[in-house]
Parts: sequence; structure tokens; C-alpha cells
Amino acid sequence: MTSTRSDRVRLVASLSGRSARSKHGQFRVEGPQAVRSLLEARGDWATALFLTEAARTDHPDFVRLAAEIGLPITPVTAEVITAMVRDQGQQSVVSPQGVIATARIVETPWLELLERAAGSGGEADGSPVTIVAADRLQDPGNAGTLLRTADASGAAAVFFGDGSVDPYAPKTVRSTAGSLFHVPFARRVPLADLLTECTRRRITTAATSGYAHTSLFSTDLPVRIAWLMGNEARGLGEDLLQRADLSIAIPLSGRAESLNLATAAALCLFESARRR
Amino acid sequence: MTSTRSDRVRLVASLSGRSARSKHGQFRVEGPQAVRSLLEARGDWATALFLTEAARTDHPDFVRLAAEIGLPITPVTAEVITAMVRDQGQQSVVSPQGVIATARIVETPWLELLERAAGSGGEADGSPVTIVAADRLQDPGNAGTLLRTADASGAAAVFFGDGSVDPYAPKTVRSTAGSLFHVPFARRVPLADLLTECTRRRITTAATSGYAHTSLFSTDLPVRIAWLMGNEARGLGEDLLQRADLSIAIPLSGRAESLNLATAAALCLFESARRR
Repeated sequence: MTSTRSDRVRLVASLSGRSARSKHGQFRVEGPQAVRSLLEARGDWATALFLTEAARTDHPDFVRLAAEIGLPITPVTAEVITAMVRDQGQQSVVSPQGVIATARIVETPWLELLERAAGSGGEADGSPVTIVAADRLQDPGNAGTLLRTADASGAAAVFFGDGSVDPYAPKTVRSTAGSLFHVPFARRVPLADLLTECTRRRITTAATSGYAHTSLFSTDLPVRIAWLMGNEARGLGEDLLQRADLSIAIPLSGRAESLNLATAAALCLFESARRR
Repeated sequence: MTSTRSDRVRLVASLSGRSARSKHGQFRVEGPQAVRSLLEARGDWATALFLTEAARTDHPDFVRLAAEIGLPITPVTAEVITAMVRDQGQQSVVSPQGVIATARIVETPWLELLERAAGSGGEADGSPVTIVAADRLQDPGNAGTLLRTADASGAAAVFFGDGSVDPYAPKTVRSTAGSLFHVPFARRVPLADLLTECTRRRITTAATSGYAHTSLFSTDLPVRIAWLMGNEARGLGEDLLQRADLSIAIPLSGRAESLNLATAAALCLFESARRR
């Protein structure tokens, strides 16, 4: 493929937008690391693989990985790759280094995801489990970093509440550094219902709040825990804050008023990881 | 001011670029939170304050803060504000909510910054101190989040090594959420020299590396410590890794290969904070 104006190029480029992703039920994956994670961990999601000649030489494993899952490789020029990552008219700031894939959006209902997470680690209800839920998360980079951190800390699932950014946005996919294909997640989750279902499964719900009196570093954390992270600017919704079992603050020393959302989530998730 | 094409608007807009910032010795500060931190913490850096009528009504404290430091307020229209945040032709994604300031770039030599940090907390060489240095940090958002996290964790200073992104870039300034005006930092720092000077001041240098055998969560951290964070893609340079006193890994549980740089820094900085 050499024409930057073909229907196929237009379709891949259109996946920058939420409505096109919804219409086609697909999303775009950019760059060697993310595409490799897709092929290795979720090969059944992949629908197309576009490689420049240079990228094919740089990453010989893609030919084998694609063959293993029966995915044809479409050779493209560097110009086609550039045309495919146009972010709503604007040029993407991160180069996909000659590698782009498309993948099906395959979603698991959030309750099924919770049930799987709640049971992970053993049959008994007392087995450790960490999950994280985000309330109206707005920044695509934060969403991606949250998935990456959840993966790295061994969390069982991530729940994006109603009104959160779409985790399939290109910037989010890039920020996950491949973890989108490792850690199970659900979107458009009604968080009040999630809290109810957590309680039924003996998972303690813990709100993070700058106003809480309990410090993350000095409290006895339960081993079955659901961390609730608030919106970047306004924090966690009042209803969720009221309903959560615990309210926990990260002790701040300087003159900063708060932490970046993904940073706060990392401190909570790794605090749980070290206690498991 | 109502014209979006005046020289003054062009100058403020030009500060999106590194060369214009260098030429004028100034940078741009956007949004109520960051501008408030500038006026409160570094009022002597401020050179101009642009406010829409709506923003002046929403934030009456700006009038008082500006008067206290003798800074005149320039009333502008919303269109002028929009014209001022054009990021090299592209529109900024974050709205400055009717509030923009410009500020002088006032730099402290890195050795002076280190000397101040090394002595902070008491006269004795054994007093606790945490600093952080970033090697060829590339993402402006990461640079901002690093400053914000350093502030919140009570770190004494941040050092951006040679080849790092410019901390005065608009996206970095936004990501700091005001912490740029709280935590002392230096840029273009020769990190090999910084390590030598740390050693002279009995500050242990600790490299973060995925290949290290020592875990962050199980090792005995020194109370005088300089954290060295590597480049987003390539990690810490081999020379720095060799020269550092310690090499420490953050234990990863999932299939993630690594953490986001600012996330890794947060875990290290708060680990030091809880031990101080």
C-alpha cells in the first residue's frame, strides 16, 4: 500500500475518534511495543497489521507472531503510516516507528470481570485481591498510565466509571505501553453498583481523599481492596466518598495541593502489592 | 486588550517555543492554579498578568495578589487568551480559563542548589535529604509530574540532566500544577558531575534499574539519597548506572516491562519520604 488516500488508510486514521471506534468496533495500536503486546497477549483481537519495510527488518519477530495467529501483514510506506496516525486533523506527536495494527474491541461485562477478580488467588473469600476504579477520569494519558501501573503492580482489574475518557483512544493505548493487553478492564461502569458488588464479595472499598484522616503509610490495609480514584480536578464524587468503607489520604510534605491521579493510584496499588 | 494580532499577544504565544523562551528569558504560565502559585510563591518572577473579565470575577484574590507584588493586570478578551496559548500553530488542549501570566526565567546554578539541599534539615552531614535527577527525560508531561511529585513528597531539589526536555515548556508548566514554583530545580545539569558532588556531601546516589537485584521495598534506604531516573525508552545511561552507589529495582508483578518514569520516581520519592 502506497496511497495515503485509500479507504483503508482513512478508516485506520478515523479510529482516532470515539464515534468511528464505536461504529467499526475497532481501535488502533501504534508502535512496536504495543503491537507486540497485542500479538503476543491478545492475538485474537488483531484485525490488521501494517509494517514498513524498515520496520519489518527491525522487528523480524512480527512475521513469526503474525503467522502464528494467521494475521496477514500489509506492507506500507512510511507516508501511509504517517497518514494513519492523524489525530483528528492534527499530527500525532509520537512516531509509530513504521508499525500499526488494528484490533477488535472485545469487552467483558464489568460484573463478570469483578467475579473473576474476586475469585482470583484461590477459592476462599479471604484470598488477596486488588482492583482499582476511576471516577470520571478525564486525561487519556492518565488512563493509560493507570492501566500500565495496575499491570505492573499485579492488580486484577481496572474499572473506568461512567463519564471517564475512552481507554481505546490512541493516546491512552500508547500510554499503556502494552499493558492494555495484559490487565483486564471495563469501561462505562456504574461505580455505585460496583461498590455494592464489591461489598457482597468481601472486597473493602477504599476512597482516596486529600481530606481523609487515615494515612496510606500507617494504616492496616485489607488484602481484598478496591481503590477508588477521583477525577483529576474535582476528586471523587461525594456519593462514592460517602459510600466507601475507608477513606485514605496520601501524606503530602511540600506545598503541592495534590498528586497527579496516576501517581496517586501508583502509590496505593504498590502499597497493596507490597502487603500481599 | 482585544486584538489577537498585537505584538504582545504574539510574544506570549511565541513562548510555546524553546528558542523564544531563551531569547526573551521568559515563560508562560496558564490557568488559575499555576498562576496563583506563581503570584504566591514566586511573585518576583512574574512579568505580566492577563485576565478576562469573567476570570477576574471568578478569582477575586488575583487582584489582591497582583497588588501586593506591584504587578499590573492587563484585561483581555477570551479571544486574546485563546490566541496566546497557540502551541506552535496547534491549539492547546487545555483551557487556561481566562488566566495567563508570563514570568522571568530565574535560574540557580545546579551546584548552589545542591549545596542548599545538602545542608537543609540541619548542620550535621547526617541530616535527611532527598533529591532526584532525571537523565535525558523526553516527555514534557513526565517532567511536570516529576516536579509535582517531588514537591508533594518533600524532596529538596530536582535536577534535569543534559538532553532533557525543557521544564519551562507550557505542557510541563501545566503538568506541575503549580509545583514548578515550589520545588527548586536546575536544567542542563551534567549528571556525572552531580554524582561526584553528591558523594562529596555524603549523599548516596541510587540508580533505578529494572535489572537491579535490590528491591525498593525490602532494602534499607539511606536518609541522604539522590534518586537517578533514566530516559523513558532507554533507561539510565550506562555510565551513570556504573557510577551510582546503589542500583535499585521496583518489583513488578504483572506482564508490564517497566513503569512510566514519573510513576517510578513517585514510588522512590515517597519511599524516601516515609523513612525520613
